[in-house]
Amino acid sequence: MRIGLGQFNSVVGDLSGNCERMRGIYEQAVRAGVELLVFPELAVCGYPPEDLLYKKSFLRDSRLAVENLAAECPGTTIVAGFAEECCGNKYNAAAVLRDGRISCIYRKGMLPNYGVFDEQRYFSAGGEAVVIDVGAAAVAITICFDIWNIDWLAGFLDASGNIDMVVNISASPFHMGKIAKREETIGRCAKRLRCGVAYCNLVGGQDELIFDGRSMLCDSSGAVVAKAAAFDEDLLIADIDVSRRGGAEIAVVGTPAEQPGDVLDEIYEALVLGTRDYTRKNGFEKVLLGLSGGIDSAVTAAIAADALGAENVVGISMPSKFNSAETRSDAEKLARNLGIEFLEIQIETTLAQFDEALKTFKGWDTKGLAYENLQARIRGCILMSLSNQAGLLVLTTGNKSETAVGYSTLYGDTAGGFGIIKDVLKTVVYQLAERINAKAGREIIPPAVITRAPSAELREDQKDSDSLPDYDLLDEILKGYVEEDKSARELIESGLPDEIVRKVIRLVDRNEYKRRLCPPGIRITPKAFGKDRRLPITNRYDSGKSTG
Amino acid sequence: MRIGLGQFNSVVGDLSGNCERMRGIYEQAVRAGVELLVFPELAVCGYPPEDLLYKKSFLRDSRLAVENLAAECPGTTIVAGFAEECCGNKYNAAAVLRDGRISCIYRKGMLPNYGVFDEQRYFSAGGEAVVIDVGAAAVAITICFDIWNIDWLAGFLDASGNIDMVVNISASPFHMGKIAKREETIGRCAKRLRCGVAYCNLVGGQDELIFDGRSMLCDSSGAVVAKAAAFDEDLLIADIDVSRRGGAEIAVVGTPAEQPGDVLDEIYEALVLGTRDYTRKNGFEKVLLGLSGGIDSAVTAAIAADALGAENVVGISMPSKFNSAETRSDAEKLARNLGIEFLEIQIETTLAQFDEALKTFKGWDTKGLAYENLQARIRGCILMSLSNQAGLLVLTTGNKSETAVGYSTLYGDTAGGFGIIKDVLKTVVYQLAERINAKAGREIIPPAVITRAPSAELREDQKDSDSLPDYDLLDEILKGYVEEDKSARELIESGLPDEIVRKVIRLVDRNEYKRRLCPPGIRITPKAFGKDRRLPITNRYDSGKSTG
Repeated sequence: MRIGLGQFNSVVGDLSGNCERMRGIYEQAVRAGVELLVFPELAVCGYPPEDLLYKKSFLRDSRLAVENLAAECPGTTIVAGFAEECCGNKYNAAAVLRDGRISCIYRKGMLPNYGVFDEQRYFSAGGEAVVIDVGAAAVAITICFDIWNIDWLAGFLDASGNIDMVVNISASPFHMGKIAKREETIGRCAKRLRCGVAYCNLVGGQDELIFDGRSMLCDSSGAVVAKAAAFDEDLLIADIDVSRRGGAEIAVVGTPAEQPGDVLDEIYEALVLGTRDYTRKNGFEKVLLGLSGGIDSAVTAAIAADALGAENVVGISMPSKFNSAETRSDAEKLARNLGIEFLEIQIETTLAQFDEALKTFKGWDTKGLAYENLQARIRGCILMSLSNQAGLLVLTTGNKSETAVGYSTLYGDTAGGFGIIKDVLKTVVYQLAERINAKAGREIIPPAVITRAPSAELREDQKDSDSLPDYDLLDEILKGYVEEDKSARELIESGLPDEIVRKVIRLVDRNEYKRRLCPPGIRITPKAFGKDRRLPITNRYDSGKSTG
Repeated sequence: MRIGLGQFNSVVGDLSGNCERMRGIYEQAVRAGVELLVFPELAVCGYPPEDLLYKKSFLRDSRLAVENLAAECPGTTIVAGFAEECCGNKYNAAAVLRDGRISCIYRKGMLPNYGVFDEQRYFSAGGEAVVIDVGAAAVAITICFDIWNIDWLAGFLDASGNIDMVVNISASPFHMGKIAKREETIGRCAKRLRCGVAYCNLVGGQDELIFDGRSMLCDSSGAVVAKAAAFDEDLLIADIDVSRRGGAEIAVVGTPAEQPGDVLDEIYEALVLGTRDYTRKNGFEKVLLGLSGGIDSAVTAAIAADALGAENVVGISMPSKFNSAETRSDAEKLARNLGIEFLEIQIETTLAQFDEALKTFKGWDTKGLAYENLQARIRGCILMSLSNQAGLLVLTTGNKSETAVGYSTLYGDTAGGFGIIKDVLKTVVYQLAERINAKAGREIIPPAVITRAPSAELREDQKDSDSLPDYDLLDEILKGYVEEDKSARELIESGLPDEIVRKVIRLVDRNEYKRRLCPPGIRITPKAFGKDRRLPITNRYDSGKSTG
């Protein structure tokens, strides 16, 4: 039996566009002799459709789209995810398309409702296994989370007789380290059920989520035999021989895609894909960002140029009297290295004018935080004005470390539409900078940008280290507290300094309001500041003090 | 049996503060001879604690807090909600405190996971009924949603023998019309189970949610015998006579609290409570807002002055050349009427300076939207600067109608910390203005502010009606589309004009990104732009065109 895994980049809500893309892949698959063509979870409507699922017309249109797809693709068996409404219930479903119609429907049994997932908000759980015959093979259909609890799945499929292959259609979001967990899960499934597993994952960016593709074929020994492209569309084709009892043999047709070299490559590719998809899927051609001469805006600009083309990126330097000649020249050098458009707009006179106006207010001064923030806000105004004037998307440049502790100006440097490195810790931003230069084989990010001590340059001789612990230490605390839900005590007992741990935790907790008002960004860790971390703004629990 | 319903204003995360408040109510109740004292759902930790529930220390501290509360309040039976961890599962639980210890624990059986609720994200469902004896009465403990599905509850309690009273501890958020649904639900429960119902609801504001209290006692005929205060703390005490078989008689002790006169009063009180609680619980004394001389900022200022005291509200007029002498003088008049501090800061010179700086950009002009938005952004800068300088919370003044269609400037008039009227449609803003004057018995909001055609005053002779349909029509479409999830076709078939319906729907859909970046505000409708409406930003589904 020849199988094809059609991992493609669906767009949420674009029913006709997604089906058109699937028809294209179908034609390619038919030419290649594929007998079973598999598309990802909710392929028809994109994932996650969120509250679009509350619209009756959306569910009706989805059903029509699947029926049309079936009619237009009669030449092979297709498994495609769609949102089904039936008898007042909604299901996360897989339609099996055959002979021009929907031949049967499998409904997801395990609905994840944790992390970024809210599936129990929308869907009812299905209760019936679906096993189809393709050639000589008995193929069980499953959807994403169904295979993550293998005891449940084994029980669920127990009465279904012999199974040669499990097909799993997925929309499994990327984060660092996720691929190993997926391989383990798929291998466990294969070994437990003694069958092959064909895993088709979504690819593409959707708001904060990245789906990384890497669809897989796994034989009944639990070994991954082939992987589709990472962070790109692909059609992975293989022949499955199920003639040997209790085992599926898999022979890939063609050359499998190259895989990312290491985690840093993975992160980089995720950021490029996320940037391209958020920008293009939301109808923007070009982006705009402030270039300070610092590391964050440099890495952001480099990724944007790779994702969208240098001709679609505009960098603006907006110096005040606090910006050194060195950083200003590094900003320009970076723009030249990338080949992006570069502008300089001075903010000194505007700052002076604001200062004049604000003197009306008793107590206004030019020494404190308000005056520092004002500089960032003037820059925000300039970026948003040019965005409005020319229809460019403004990229924010805040990293995860500063987003965590609120080291940013609300409505200042946080003003924009999308934050590429919002979930990237500062220490990883530096690693990305080195990697960007290494990949290019020449200087993209000027070396001084990498070696200079980080500064917001909002007052004389300011350094990040005046306000924050060293980034190595800060990032270690943030990783433990934010991503691993560790308590102050656990972190301190692991050897981190007591006072700094508690201070950082308090900063994280107190800045929930600020993070809530930051634009979306790309999730690359197990816990980003997005749908996966839902903390109240009004919150008097003192995690820094707690006994735990 | 004498019962007390201790509806109090808990603070999320403030375990010790909430328990201290409960101890105070306990002392009051003991003095009044109360034998069963009931506190709201999750009273110990506040509702909803969201991802605080993922912190092990939070759950451990919660358990300690309940145990302390039990030890300190041995003089009567208490039912108090808390978050329980047991054997790796988390429960939304009610502890029964007796003789200085936790005597038993009921675990919520029905976990809502729709609208603003995410309880299946955190909690496992309990499976065992708890019926306690208080004097001669058999009292079944339930939590909030448990009584909303009466068939489930009747089955659940079926094996529990005779029940004289159902106690329900709740955290039921307010929206217009909710009280009638609650009365219906509680009455249905009483009639079906042939017993009295004692319903204790939370009161207070928590981020976007308002809990309105109005705890209730209902006899076995289904009639509500007494209601506690609306939007305020209260201890409702009554004697329950269960000596008659199959019926509970209820006699209230003292005079029940006055209830709001109508829906407009309800909304007003909800907004006042929400403003006070968001401000105070987040540690702010004073607030700051721009006064344009328009209706939105006038109503916002009046509510803030009522909630926080006139001495804690600062209004700033920030005129440009496009602001008429009339609106400028109305802003000042309003401030005088309210007795709040008033400042005027001109923005004309700053605007000219920005314009000068932005000319660097090819294509910049002073005729279009970018120049209009710039004025709003300069005002945002001024407000945020003063907020930073003096520690004031900035109130935004956008109403629901403009928030829906994106008639606002991102990082301009949407810049701030809290939006009082974010969920109030423009037509209701006018009603509130009239009511504010009527309540005061004098002019608070100058009549011209109410009668003048609304304008953003960002260009010469601008009127809202240049860009938007009349607010009567706009609000009707928004109510149908946003709050009732109606489709374009349903709205058009109900008689609304085809072209305008589709245009408004497209505006709502396209402005999801902008709403995502607005500060929180107070929810007063069945569907606000908050946790209850979760739409993707990246979304190509065209609800305006759809066939539904």
